[in-house]
Amino acid sequence: MPKIIECVPNFSEGRDQDVVKRIAAPFSGRPGVKLLDVQTDGDHNRMVVTAIGAPDPMKQAVIEAMAEAIARIDMTCHQGQHPRMGAVDVVPFIPVQEITMPEAVELSRQVAAEAAARFELPVFLYERSASAPHRANLAAVRKGQFEGMAEKLKAPQWQPDYGPAKVHPTAGVTAVGARAPLVAFNVNLGTDRADIADAIAKTVRHIGGGLRYCKAMGVTLQERNQVQVSMNMTDFSQSALYQALELIRIEARRFGVPVVGSEVVGLVPMQALIDCAAHYLGLENFTMAQVLESHLL
Amino acid sequence: MPKIIECVPNFSEGRDQDVVKRIAAPFSGRPGVKLLDVQTDGDHNRMVVTAIGAPDPMKQAVIEAMAEAIARIDMTCHQGQHPRMGAVDVVPFIPVQEITMPEAVELSRQVAAEAAARFELPVFLYERSASAPHRANLAAVRKGQFEGMAEKLKAPQWQPDYGPAKVHPTAGVTAVGARAPLVAFNVNLGTDRADIADAIAKTVRHIGGGLRYCKAMGVTLQERNQVQVSMNMTDFSQSALYQALELIRIEARRFGVPVVGSEVVGLVPMQALIDCAAHYLGLENFTMAQVLESHLL
Repeated sequence: MPKIIECVPNFSEGRDQDVVKRIAAPFSGRPGVKLLDVQTDGDHNRMVVTAIGAPDPMKQAVIEAMAEAIARIDMTCHQGQHPRMGAVDVVPFIPVQEITMPEAVELSRQVAAEAAARFELPVFLYERSASAPHRANLAAVRKGQFEGMAEKLKAPQWQPDYGPAKVHPTAGVTAVGARAPLVAFNVNLGTDRADIADAIAKTVRHIGGGLRYCKAMGVTLQERNQVQVSMNMTDFSQSALYQALELIRIEARRFGVPVVGSEVVGLVPMQALIDCAAHYLGLENFTMAQVLESHLL
Repeated sequence: MPKIIECVPNFSEGRDQDVVKRIAAPFSGRPGVKLLDVQTDGDHNRMVVTAIGAPDPMKQAVIEAMAEAIARIDMTCHQGQHPRMGAVDVVPFIPVQEITMPEAVELSRQVAAEAAARFELPVFLYERSASAPHRANLAAVRKGQFEGMAEKLKAPQWQPDYGPAKVHPTAGVTAVGARAPLVAFNVNLGTDRADIADAIAKTVRHIGGGLRYCKAMGVTLQERNQVQVSMNMTDFSQSALYQALELIRIEARRFGVPVVGSEVVGLVPMQALIDCAAHYLGLENFTMAQVLESHLL
């Protein structure tokens, strides 16, 4: 089986479809790389590319996409619901097949070093690639967002791992790192009240006393006139999607608000959904070896 | 991608582990064939082998397993919960990859012809291989079970497709055919009353006015002191597992009986479970292309 790495870079443009297309282009038609998904969100004003492929061509594709984003996105006039600190906000690498976590970490370091040198961009290593424990969590690295980065980079504990110790004037700051598979899972509520989504997000997420591998925040969906609890499930094998959904459902009940649906953004490992099916069906003694396709991988 | 056929032969022995092992052996250690699962059930007194592989070695493995079963199982003293008509009760072939349904039908005909000649065994073609519409349904072919086959084979409309028009004295009759993927899905009830499982089975199955692609019957699980609704979901893309479960749950409620769990017997296509996850999570706009592994097959 060949080595396969997944890369899910997030860029701070979700509205201008021409820019979106140019940023995604380096992942298309390149031998060894398969572009799986480009999601854009006008409310978040953000795009998420998902690609899988061999390490070397993937590295090339990422650098080219970063060049496009840095040339075309001006963070000084960027607005959107999602927290962000740079034109290329975050570049995670996820080992999929025949690649160890240390190999993924090494790949992330190479991309961080090359991008920093080429674009004069401050780059933080995060998650499994972090150079210190306080830099592992993306939310901690991104705290202050684009507008607060100039000040943040003056602190000794927030010197970037690569590149200059000052914010790129239009592209801000970027985080690059290796991590375990993450599922972006959002639960939509039948209300437009942002305070309710915020309150519920706080109860379900780890820092609020909720699920250990769940990050959550309230987001307003202007186009739908609804709010959602937007989550990153950072280890679905420990904190399951169905646990997050059901916790949100019972909290929402206190506000008299219904759960009206949910969504998975981007890719999801088969196991994360099958765990949910097994839970709701009440399957006894089920193993992944019973999944026909598991024998064809 | 190579041609892959799945074969899920059912044999009428679920208690004697030595016989079970001998029947399953031809599917092990054979180049081109992968034995995925051997399930035995003492109450059903039945074993279900699941194997995938290339058509030619699969054909050889099936014929050898049939030889073992016919040599070792005596249907004149067989007892079990599950309807059965032969030592080798039924041999379904399911196209998995790069094989069309007509190719699977042709393979089933070859196996039926060879087994009939070699074992002097009456063989019916069923499902997509059936030689007449009234023979497509396995339950119709098997009606009367082993004990009734001598009389049944006298009727002109029940002449076997291959082999002698009389029952094999100890091995009975066998059905061979090609079919779409089937999911064996059982729902366990918190009662030992067989009449309740029977009554619920009748409401959920197609012939009783229930789901179109659902066959169901009540089964007693002596070892657990419970009953179950034992189902074959013959097209999960049309009649979903969660529909069957929820229909059983609401019928059981009328008897004051809880659903205590469920099980999938043998293999299940990824899609059948992901459909359930998507339903219970309320996923909006979800596609199978979001499943990471779908891009690695």
